[in-house]
Formats: sequence, C-alpha cells, structure tokens
Amino acid sequence: MKNSKLLQLKVDHLYHIALDTEQHDLQTMFGDVKFVCFGGQVSRMERFTSFVIQELGLQPGTGDTPTNYAAGTDRYALYKAGPVLAVSHGIGIPSLSVVFNEILKLVHYAKCTDVTFFRIGTCGGVGLEPGTVVLTEKAVDGAFQPFLSTTILGKKVQRPAYVEKPLLEELLSCSENTDDFKTVTGTTMCTDDFYEGQARLDGAFCDYDEDDKMKFLNNVKAKGVCNIEMESLGFLAMCNHAGVPGAVACVTLLDRLKGDFVSTDFSLLKSWQHRAQKLVLRFIKRRITQQNRHKNG
Amino acid sequence: MKNSKLLQLKVDHLYHIALDTEQHDLQTMFGDVKFVCFGGQVSRMERFTSFVIQELGLQPGTGDTPTNYAAGTDRYALYKAGPVLAVSHGIGIPSLSVVFNEILKLVHYAKCTDVTFFRIGTCGGVGLEPGTVVLTEKAVDGAFQPFLSTTILGKKVQRPAYVEKPLLEELLSCSENTDDFKTVTGTTMCTDDFYEGQARLDGAFCDYDEDDKMKFLNNVKAKGVCNIEMESLGFLAMCNHAGVPGAVACVTLLDRLKGDFVSTDFSLLKSWQHRAQKLVLRFIKRRITQQNRHKNG
Repeated sequence: MKNSKLLQLKVDHLYHIALDTEQHDLQTMFGDVKFVCFGGQVSRMERFTSFVIQELGLQPGTGDTPTNYAAGTDRYALYKAGPVLAVSHGIGIPSLSVVFNEILKLVHYAKCTDVTFFRIGTCGGVGLEPGTVVLTEKAVDGAFQPFLSTTILGKKVQRPAYVEKPLLEELLSCSENTDDFKTVTGTTMCTDDFYEGQARLDGAFCDYDEDDKMKFLNNVKAKGVCNIEMESLGFLAMCNHAGVPGAVACVTLLDRLKGDFVSTDFSLLKSWQHRAQKLVLRFIKRRITQQNRHKNG
Repeated sequence: MKNSKLLQLKVDHLYHIALDTEQHDLQTMFGDVKFVCFGGQVSRMERFTSFVIQELGLQPGTGDTPTNYAAGTDRYALYKAGPVLAVSHGIGIPSLSVVFNEILKLVHYAKCTDVTFFRIGTCGGVGLEPGTVVLTEKAVDGAFQPFLSTTILGKKVQRPAYVEKPLLEELLSCSENTDDFKTVTGTTMCTDDFYEGQARLDGAFCDYDEDDKMKFLNNVKAKGVCNIEMESLGFLAMCNHAGVPGAVACVTLLDRLKGDFVSTDFSLLKSWQHRAQKLVLRFIKRRITQQNRHKNG
C-alpha cells in the first residue's frame, strides 16, 4: 500500500462504492480476488461477470443477475465471479480515478495477493479493421505525451503509463490462430474529450475542417498509435504508481481514418465487445490452471 | 450552433444518449425545453425530476418513476418535466463533456429557444458550514487557472469558465431569508481527481502529509475558493464557448479544512442535496411566471 496514513484510520469508507472496513468483512468478501477487470459500462461488466461465471464453471448466485456489491450507490457497480472482480468505471480518467483508488484500497484491506488489473474497453481504431482487439503497449495523451499529467497540491506531476513487457506478451499469447478477429499491440492515445479531443467533425463544437482532421489522424497513425480512447493513460499510470501489474485490451468499433460515427449494427457491436473479454478470460483461465498446478505439485 | 458541419449530416446519432435525428422527432419530444439541469448521479436526477413535476404541478407520466429518454444506454440518463430537462453526467469533466456535446446538439435539433443550463451538484466546502449552497462565480483548475485547458488536434486550447453576472445575481436572489441554510457565491476549484487532486490524506496514494495538505487548503481559501468539485470548469467553459447561459449550484457535504471524509448521516446528506435543487427550482418557477406574464400581457 502506497499510503501509510491509512493505517491511522479507525474506519475507512470506500465512499463511491458504498463499502467500508467497519460494516463489511472485506477479507471474507473479496480475499480470494486475483483479477480485477475494469470497464466503462455497468451493463457490460454485469454481462462480463455472467460470462466469467459460465466459463469458469462457477455456481451462479441466487438471483437472475450477478450481485452488485456496490448496490448502495449508483455511481459505480462491482461484481464478483470467483477470483474475478468486475468494476464499472464510467467515462474518462477522473471517473476512473475515483473508483480505482477505492478498489486499490479494497484489494489492500481484503489482503488479496498477486492481483492483476485489466481495463477491458471499446475504442476508435486508427487504420485497423473494425472489431480488432488492441493491447496497449503504452498510453499517450492527446499531445503524444507518454505520461499522465495530474495536479497535486497545485503542482503538475507526471506519471508514466506503460504495460510491463512480460504481461503484454502473456496477454498477446492468449490470441489464437482460429480467432475470427485480429489482436495487435501498439500505442493507445487517451483523450479527455470524445469529440474535439479525438478530432471528430460531428460534435457540438468544431473549429477545424476535414483536412485538419485527416492531417492530425495520419500523424497519430505515423506515431504508432493504434487506437484512441479515454481511460488507458490514467489506468496504466495508476497501476504503475501502485506497483500493480496492469494491462489494457480494447476492441475497435470503427476506423477513425474512415469516419467519426459508429455505424455498425448493434448486435454485431455487442459481439465485438465480447472479443477483448474473451482474450482476458483466456489469460485468467491459464493463470488459474498454473496456480492450481503449483498448489497441487 | 457552433458547428456548421452538422448541417451536412443526413442523420446525427447522439450515440451516448441513444437518440438520433432519424428515429426520434426531437422537436416534438424536447422543443419546449427552457432549462437543462445536469447532475452527477442518475438516481439524484430522477428524484429531482419527480420534485420538479410535483412543484410545477405537472401531470406525472404513466409509470411510478419519470421516463428515462436515454433508456437505450446505461451511460447517462435523461428525464423531462415540462420545460425542464434533467441529465446525469457521471464524474469528472471528460464524462460531462461527452453528454454535454450531445445535449447541446439535442437542444439545437429540437429548436429550443432561450435555454439556460445548470449544474446542480455536491462538493467539498472550504471554510463553510456543511450544507451551505455555493453558487460559482468562476471556476479554476487544481493549479488556480481560470480556464479549461483541453487538447484539440494535439494543441492546448484554453477556454474561460465564468458565470455571467446577471444570471449569478438572479440565481442568488432566489435564496430566502427563511432558508435553513446559507447561500454564498465564490470561486469553485475543479479538479481531475477526488483524492490527491483535492489534497485528501485517505486515498490509495498520498506522498504529502497533513501539514502540506493544510498549507494547500489554506492557500485555496486565501485565493477566494469556496468549494472544490470535479465538473464546474468544464461545464462553464462549454457553456461560455457555446454561448449558452450557464450556472453552477453545489451544496457542500463537509468542510475540507476540518476533514477528508463525509461523515454526515445519509438521510441528512440527502436533504442537503435537495437545497441546491430547491434554489434552482425557484429560479425556474420565477422565469416561468415571467414568461407567462409576457405571453398574456
């Protein structure tokens, strides 16, 4: 734990996920967690949890849908399937950072060990066929800086945002030749805005034209950026700063060199979203098998 | 409308609120909207809508709860009560900016006229009694800069974030001597993080101590900052840039000079959240009365 001042707290309230160290026995509830998977939307993380329950052959809960452990609030949702915790983070780095802090504290209080964090998301691709899964090597901001720039006590602080090579390679090795989609690695651009921040022409504001946009996006591509989204930079910077292994797997919903708007059929989009989840779940299954072998051998 | 390129679109998909200009008759649905109220949480905006329905003596919808017009997605929620649109924006400027862009386009396509935007939220107070309502004069970032700094086509752009004086005064004049809470005006600090960004000691990360924190917060107070939250800067910068009158009313849940954690009883907190809503609703009622007088006289 990076903040020793937490030891002085009698009770720690994980305010935005409506859990605390007094009323909840976090170790009993979450002590076996080995994988924390973050994603933007509540509904997607709920479906992901059902998928994990099914694929790991776990006993589903009593209800029709997985239990939301953060049901005391509607800011975020928190699901669990065996060793997998699934967390919604909303849109953008600030929204992610609030729940990331509280999940990191949860993992600490629950005395979890050897935990790996993932962000499983959607993004715009740059020169890739829509439906491609991108595994982030490093994240850059909208001005190509490879670190999160954040303000603490009025001063700018920079935190690098990259994925450790062994983790990236382990995740990449979970792609299979028989997959009906491609999995690639590359730089991810992370912006603070979806419209102007990503050079779209169809936002409420737009002071540039098609030529300016294409010049920028071609430059983005030339600099090795494979995809654009809104959280990877904060996610990896916080993983790096916490010393927690973290990786980002996002599926591209469109090719930004060809347009601004996601025009793909909704059911096809849903099946694409499943691709990054599938890849991460293969990783999780392999790790569980290794751990069991280690335990039994 | 600031973006003339939208005129070239055959269909505009307001992707994150699951509405579009082809399948939805936005003018019939939303043409009478005069007030757009943004707030963080879905549940709070739903309760606010019920409150507006009741206070304006409107006919409630057919269900037990107000209709969510963005029900096709779980990213944001969108309610309507007569001339009032209530929108959830999640946490932080990036999350707000996505839905702000799409609501601005909705208001344009619906041909709404004379629209005023509000953010009704919660915040940490600086040297104020908890439960005080703060009306923002101007917003500053975590380094005291009075503008939103955003990156467009790889370049930094600065957009000022203030409230027009007549609107601020009109809103302030809605506070009443008999209110059981104080309403003040001042500068709002808007940060990109809830823990380190707001000098809290109880986040997962903390590389400073109590003295550093208090020195910073006392400086914040000395510079005229009344409250700290995470959206006002983006909200006002976008209102200013769009040429839409916008104001921010937030209730303080704690005094940051006295602590980091909101320890107030939950039901009391809920009644406090109501205070900023009450103030904005008085403003709305007055404006409606003026408009009716104007129509009838």
